[in-house]
Amino acid sequence: MYRTLASTLRALRRRLFSSSVIAMSCPYKQPQHKLTMIPGPIEFSDEVLYAMLTPSQAHTSPEFVATFQSVLSNLRKLFQSTDKAAQPYVLAGSGTLGWDVAAANLVQKDDKVLVLLTGFFSDSFADCLRVYDVNVDVLTAPIGDVVPLADIEKQLKAESYKAITITHVDTSTSVVSDVEAIAAVVKKVSPETLIFVDGVCSIGVEDLKFDDWGIDFALTASQKAIGVPAGLSIFFASARAVEKALARQKDSTFFASLKRWTPIMKAYESGSGAYFATPAVQAITALKVSLDEIVSEGLSARLAKQEETSTKFKKDMELLGLRILPVNHSVAAHGLTAVYFPENVNGGDLLAKLASKGFTVAGGIHKALVGKYFRVGHMGYSVYAGHVDLVSKAIKESVEELSQ
Amino acid sequence: MYRTLASTLRALRRRLFSSSVIAMSCPYKQPQHKLTMIPGPIEFSDEVLYAMLTPSQAHTSPEFVATFQSVLSNLRKLFQSTDKAAQPYVLAGSGTLGWDVAAANLVQKDDKVLVLLTGFFSDSFADCLRVYDVNVDVLTAPIGDVVPLADIEKQLKAESYKAITITHVDTSTSVVSDVEAIAAVVKKVSPETLIFVDGVCSIGVEDLKFDDWGIDFALTASQKAIGVPAGLSIFFASARAVEKALARQKDSTFFASLKRWTPIMKAYESGSGAYFATPAVQAITALKVSLDEIVSEGLSARLAKQEETSTKFKKDMELLGLRILPVNHSVAAHGLTAVYFPENVNGGDLLAKLASKGFTVAGGIHKALVGKYFRVGHMGYSVYAGHVDLVSKAIKESVEELSQ
Repeated sequence: MYRTLASTLRALRRRLFSSSVIAMSCPYKQPQHKLTMIPGPIEFSDEVLYAMLTPSQAHTSPEFVATFQSVLSNLRKLFQSTDKAAQPYVLAGSGTLGWDVAAANLVQKDDKVLVLLTGFFSDSFADCLRVYDVNVDVLTAPIGDVVPLADIEKQLKAESYKAITITHVDTSTSVVSDVEAIAAVVKKVSPETLIFVDGVCSIGVEDLKFDDWGIDFALTASQKAIGVPAGLSIFFASARAVEKALARQKDSTFFASLKRWTPIMKAYESGSGAYFATPAVQAITALKVSLDEIVSEGLSARLAKQEETSTKFKKDMELLGLRILPVNHSVAAHGLTAVYFPENVNGGDLLAKLASKGFTVAGGIHKALVGKYFRVGHMGYSVYAGHVDLVSKAIKESVEELSQ
Repeated sequence: MYRTLASTLRALRRRLFSSSVIAMSCPYKQPQHKLTMIPGPIEFSDEVLYAMLTPSQAHTSPEFVATFQSVLSNLRKLFQSTDKAAQPYVLAGSGTLGWDVAAANLVQKDDKVLVLLTGFFSDSFADCLRVYDVNVDVLTAPIGDVVPLADIEKQLKAESYKAITITHVDTSTSVVSDVEAIAAVVKKVSPETLIFVDGVCSIGVEDLKFDDWGIDFALTASQKAIGVPAGLSIFFASARAVEKALARQKDSTFFASLKRWTPIMKAYESGSGAYFATPAVQAITALKVSLDEIVSEGLSARLAKQEETSTKFKKDMELLGLRILPVNHSVAAHGLTAVYFPENVNGGDLLAKLASKGFTVAGGIHKALVGKYFRVGHMGYSVYAGHVDLVSKAIKESVEELSQ
């Protein structure tokens, strides 16, 4: 039986699949599986996942050069940047690697950097900076809240900083910082301070106008709102950041050096291959497909759709009597929601119940609140595929069943 | 027509695909495509490539933890290590990142390191060490040859080195160094010197007995003989290397820190998830499939099969009157062959002709010989799928056509 079906399948495939697997309608549909509703890795569209099946290509082949060229060009749209001297980068790595890139290329030993701390990930960015002997000052927000603008302004007036870090969305708390307003304060008080944005859980789901807001460095990863399998570190540097990196006297890293990667990215974007380290061909091909989807929908429509879904999900949780971790909706991110466990329900039981219903959600990781809340991702494909309503319904049922 | 076929395909898929896509026979066969016969990325087996299609899994899900556990356990077999205190690592990255890991974790500023230079990649490893303020001495082999053992012994006696680097196969020249013999010299003359092996183009195709030969650090990448899409940095550290990294007072890197990654790898191998940076879930799943293939065939059988194919390919080239770059067969690698272009044929024309026949081969990248030779990869799946004979035949035809 299997043999017959398989050979029929092969015959069909010969008709359906062209050698250029990406260019045509996607003949692939994912099998039913447990839905990954965490704040990344998120669920992928069939088309994006199918691109991972691209047969081997040389990293300097015309086919892959065209793919990478399209990716770099579309990243400019994703970061809302039109400044040709600003530069997109894609490296094999993860979001974490982006911190090293900032710390090793854009600041020097003993430079003062101001870190706005809104959770676990802001804290880790500070740790990374300290590894590179940067002198870090931290402004810590109350749990579930952001650092008040007035405090930031006061600190920038009191001390001179080479850079400031903003964790756009801290994935540990689901708190979103107002990057536009903070950047405006920096521009007013200390315009020479470089602005670093950790956009790991924001790029593609929160608005980030790289040029207009005067951001110098923004980093993200493939497996978040961009909706591509994990394995890519994606970041964007302003003209002055690139200039600073290229003028650096002494490198502090080899693999994460912007001096080494900048000519490579420029080569690919201009349509020719270049080599420093082998790029992740299949993941970058999947990134091309995802960026094509985002660009063809239009970024603003995509942000609006995800915000609408987020608002509905939060309302669903509140209707269940659950409380979200952010202190109010204006500081609550749109790509995920952190929700306190109901008092009468054991957290571990709720996560297990959801798993049994086919959903993976994430536990809380803020040090002060471990075991007290959970996190649900609602970014990208899941927003379009109806997964968010499904997980919302499953949470409702689970809470009811466990409260009985 | 498409619609009907697609819906039939979907019905078939529901029968053929289980939610655990990896566990069953592979229902997928790659479409015909240009064969990538370069020294990495190489061609992938259908099963390995199909694993890239694994739907999203949380990086700490039981499914992915089991996958990563299997990978780490099988890497011990690939590196022929039974020392439980030695440690395998898999990071999102590339082979290049492995140099940073060695340079940033296992040696210190001003430490003396001896680099055996057999081509472009040995040279780059030295560059990486210098970034971390390591004091590098270089013994340079004649082009196409290795550094004489006597020179290595003399240098180790003349100077005290914290580490020595051996590029097992320098992909730029296809020269293979005798790691066993070099390691024996190091053990005899300077046993405290750490032995670093760049195994990017060797692990899985050349013999490397990590424990028996007393190697301290060996690095590779997914897209070489391991036969997995690019995007993974894979490396192995000895007990004393791990100890040294963990005892380090001051980190020199965040993302590439063994202090941060060691507990993560230990957790996954023992069957529980842990987080420092998000692993490349799909690529690691493909790595699992590839390691399963290698382990089930048996490493020694696999090495023998690849050596046999390599010998035949080299003989084919020589029968055509072509000369290989290595000065003799005893220093010629088994995973690729660097071949001088015939004198009466333009190199660019030969590469273009091969491309038109459906084969991507690589140009030469040794600085002194650019444009004078080409490189053909013959590792992993292509050895089993008959690709090597096909490319050999295509080279013969191309040379004949271009010589007319």
